[in-house]
Amino acid sequence: MKRIISGIKHLINYYLDKKRLHTVIFNSDTPAGKKFDIILLWAILLSVILVILESMPEIGHHHPNLFYVIDWVFTLLFTFEYILRIYSSKKRRKYIFSFWGIIDLLSILPTYLSLFVLSYHYLLVIRVLRLLRVFRILRLFNFTREGKVLLIALRKSIYKILVFITFIFIFVVIIGTVMYVIEHDNPGFSSIPASIYWGIVTITTVGFGDIVPMTYFGKFLASIIMLSGYAIIAVPTGIVTVELAKNRKHNITCKHCKHVIDAMDNYCRNCGKPVNIIE
Amino acid sequence: MKRIISGIKHLINYYLDKKRLHTVIFNSDTPAGKKFDIILLWAILLSVILVILESMPEIGHHHPNLFYVIDWVFTLLFTFEYILRIYSSKKRRKYIFSFWGIIDLLSILPTYLSLFVLSYHYLLVIRVLRLLRVFRILRLFNFTREGKVLLIALRKSIYKILVFITFIFIFVVIIGTVMYVIEHDNPGFSSIPASIYWGIVTITTVGFGDIVPMTYFGKFLASIIMLSGYAIIAVPTGIVTVELAKNRKHNITCKHCKHVIDAMDNYCRNCGKPVNIIE
Amino acid sequence: MKRIISGIKHLINYYLDKKRLHTVIFNSDTPAGKKFDIILLWAILLSVILVILESMPEIGHHHPNLFYVIDWVFTLLFTFEYILRIYSSKKRRKYIFSFWGIIDLLSILPTYLSLFVLSYHYLLVIRVLRLLRVFRILRLFNFTREGKVLLIALRKSIYKILVFITFIFIFVVIIGTVMYVIEHDNPGFSSIPASIYWGIVTITTVGFGDIVPMTYFGKFLASIIMLSGYAIIAVPTGIVTVELAKNRKHNITCKHCKHVIDAMDNYCRNCGKPVNIIE
Amino acid sequence: MKRIISGIKHLINYYLDKKRLHTVIFNSDTPAGKKFDIILLWAILLSVILVILESMPEIGHHHPNLFYVIDWVFTLLFTFEYILRIYSSKKRRKYIFSFWGIIDLLSILPTYLSLFVLSYHYLLVIRVLRLLRVFRILRLFNFTREGKVLLIALRKSIYKILVFITFIFIFVVIIGTVMYVIEHDNPGFSSIPASIYWGIVTITTVGFGDIVPMTYFGKFLASIIMLSGYAIIAVPTGIVTVELAKNRKHNITCKHCKHVIDAMDNYCRNCGKPVNIIE
Repeated sequence: MKRIISGIKHLINYYLDKKRLHTVIFNSDTPAGKKFDIILLWAILLSVILVILESMPEIGHHHPNLFYVIDWVFTLLFTFEYILRIYSSKKRRKYIFSFWGIIDLLSILPTYLSLFVLSYHYLLVIRVLRLLRVFRILRLFNFTREGKVLLIALRKSIYKILVFITFIFIFVVIIGTVMYVIEHDNPGFSSIPASIYWGIVTITTVGFGDIVPMTYFGKFLASIIMLSGYAIIAVPTGIVTVELAKNRKHNITCKHCKHVIDAMDNYCRNCGKPVNIIE
Repeated sequence: MKRIISGIKHLINYYLDKKRLHTVIFNSDTPAGKKFDIILLWAILLSVILVILESMPEIGHHHPNLFYVIDWVFTLLFTFEYILRIYSSKKRRKYIFSFWGIIDLLSILPTYLSLFVLSYHYLLVIRVLRLLRVFRILRLFNFTREGKVLLIALRKSIYKILVFITFIFIFVVIIGTVMYVIEHDNPGFSSIPASIYWGIVTITTVGFGDIVPMTYFGKFLASIIMLSGYAIIAVPTGIVTVELAKNRKHNITCKHCKHVIDAMDNYCRNCGKPVNIIE
Repeated sequence: MKRIISGIKHLINYYLDKKRLHTVIFNSDTPAGKKFDIILLWAILLSVILVILESMPEIGHHHPNLFYVIDWVFTLLFTFEYILRIYSSKKRRKYIFSFWGIIDLLSILPTYLSLFVLSYHYLLVIRVLRLLRVFRILRLFNFTREGKVLLIALRKSIYKILVFITFIFIFVVIIGTVMYVIEHDNPGFSSIPASIYWGIVTITTVGFGDIVPMTYFGKFLASIIMLSGYAIIAVPTGIVTVELAKNRKHNITCKHCKHVIDAMDNYCRNCGKPVNIIE
Repeated sequence: MKRIISGIKHLINYYLDKKRLHTVIFNSDTPAGKKFDIILLWAILLSVILVILESMPEIGHHHPNLFYVIDWVFTLLFTFEYILRIYSSKKRRKYIFSFWGIIDLLSILPTYLSLFVLSYHYLLVIRVLRLLRVFRILRLFNFTREGKVLLIALRKSIYKILVFITFIFIFVVIIGTVMYVIEHDNPGFSSIPASIYWGIVTITTVGFGDIVPMTYFGKFLASIIMLSGYAIIAVPTGIVTVELAKNRKHNITCKHCKHVIDAMDNYCRNCGKPVNIIE
């Protein structure tokens, strides 16, 4: 409570000064900015936990009004934050139509929409999307330095992995059709899409077991698929490992000044603007 | 529609000139060749999606005539393409009996066969094989540059992986027999092949759960198999990773001029013919 | 038996000399110290095996008194050891409140508590915690030299893996909510936590199969999750492999003299005190 | 048939000469030795396939006499081979009590024992052990050059993997006890061993699904175990990959002349005797 009040106080003190407000809301270099981000982080996590708890029949069905009220409290809080963000941003239109601007809008929209729309159920997904906002806060906190290493490695290997998954997908479609023909009396393999689904479940070694081959030949083919899966699972691991092992610098171009910088830097060494590799 | 028409126009304009036709159909360097390949790519994907949709009881059973007609449209299109390919190829016999020539034939054969044969069901597999033709088009587009790196690494490590799978297979046969003897009252382990199937499902960590050990000793042995699977799954991953990490050049011999070239090149630096590592 | 007696003899011979007792109990450099540790190792393993056997209905229910008596024998033995440890330690308070001191107390407490408390069942967990004491003995035996290499690699990569698991967790919460909305008629996806549980089971490729998607769209989304799991499972493997491959020295600071030492050393090269990286 | 006859001819031609016989049976450098090994390889594979087929109710129950006769044919063949091996070996006692000597005896024993013993069922395992003899033949053929690389890497990392599995095992025992306490109303977790079995099935990502947590807290703990499994599965893969990546020579000592040789060599460069790393 104390934290929230002091956070609000800070906001009011500076409310006339757009630049200061911008520093508090969009950066986290100042103590006030850090405090603001921590409050926001907790508000987001709490609101998502409440959505999760509400979905549990044991909890949600017994206190419908409680969750309704709390949801409105968080929505009004996030709406206030959204208005402040628009007010304090230097280029308002740019913020509103940016990735984070849309996510900010999506995190408050469902509650307002629920006043008009009946199918409240489907809005749940949009409400949980506010969890994505956690990444923005973590980014500001320089929390994702380690995540950056992973992201660069994944980004460098994503094209190889996509080619690999294309191969796998064509393999799985052919396998699925063969299994559909072999196991035509098995209700689990009632259509080619169902067989492809089984193929993916098997080749990724998930193996739910809701669909299993029944015939001798089907089991024999499944065995070959599983053993060939040994070579298959090794490929993406190899790709990522090799990329992570490379110690060379990953040079990217600063979006603002087009200066060539190191992807591991947080701020451009030429123009001083933050470097985003997530977007 | 527009694209198809302009593609056909191009074909007619050049239809007298074998050499030009060959460039359009077999290469993708010219704009017309690229257009042709893109149309073909979509035609293949659409025809395979239709085969998949037809297999779904909800869709296929309600519109049998629709799928029948569409199938014939695609078959006639691919037949026309097949005739053009034979007409325009420099060495016709060589093309017809080449890998891609047979795949091209197989992709149109099932529909014609369905006029005479009743067991339409089994022809499905052959019809889906036309998906393999996607690889030829992707190859022409130089799309598989990344795929090439993976293929070279897999090819270099395939012998090691085969030796590894031989070891695993002998291990699984012995394990399967032991489990068959231990779990002789378990209907899931009714024969040694069934036990071997269970062994493969377990050692690859797929774990369907349709067959599970019941006795204490069976569960104990299964635990040991699963824990030893830790060391086992590590081996192929290690093989592929090490091969991918090697940065040395992979020299192969050009099929046409026997010149030693780099496997990563697309065209032979001596005779200019395309380098295939897929075939 | 012989070993136990000779071990006890040794203890009595030296019982007046705190320093000697300390060497026997806390170190394993002397023959007596080694003997003591081996006896203790077997006592711990036996007592844990007895807890496990007792839990089996076929065994535990038929000999309740037997297990009761054996449990008290081991408890008295460990109590005697605990008293000796307090008596012989140089800084008693420090030992009692150290990690190992608390584990030593926890390994005898449950049996005494069972005299007063009825819910004996829940004390089981505490009794099995004595298995942790195995690590102390193994550490003294310099048995964990290989384990040290693994621990250093895991420790160096733990931060990266935690960031990775945070990413995964947010991914799984969003996925879980989407699946909860899609599969709202499926009893397995009755709440968001249940859906998140399914998401974790799927993304880790465990795939129990107790909860499976039923709708076409749910299966389609599950397929995408499983295929993306290919890239995901590759990441921690890559992290640990890269860390293990680094041959550079891992320097840490000695807790006692603050001298910079190699993490692979067993004793500080400056003050001679044992180096612990486990704690 | 032709091959078998010519193989037998060769054996008869040389039957007086122990040294020649030894070369044919124990080595595979000469054409006759190679022929002998190929015949033996097929005989072993066929006899094992027959054991497997016999176990299938659809096949084995209908032709009991057929399998009985074929089994005796192979047993007599292997007995003849066993006698020849003893006759031609330089140090008979050494051969009889060597690893391969015992395996050779075990591969013929079950059929003779079946004359006296009724529980034919349990002898199956011993009969399948003759599959191990495949390794000896492959070794002679220098077929396992690739396998050697894998074996050396596994051998160098086996100690690290064993320490790792010890850690995992202690972890799984504690986890199993906790789950046993939490899920005490779940018939799947009826004893600590059953819970440990579940823990191993889960941590290795096999996930049969025959035992699944039911309570909210059990599912929560299972989720943590599965996510921590991410870091766990990465460890053995990292160990093996690092070992495979090492290009340094693996020096071992020749058993015969104690000369230091490269483990990748097939024959000792000092005394010329074959180098075995399998035994």
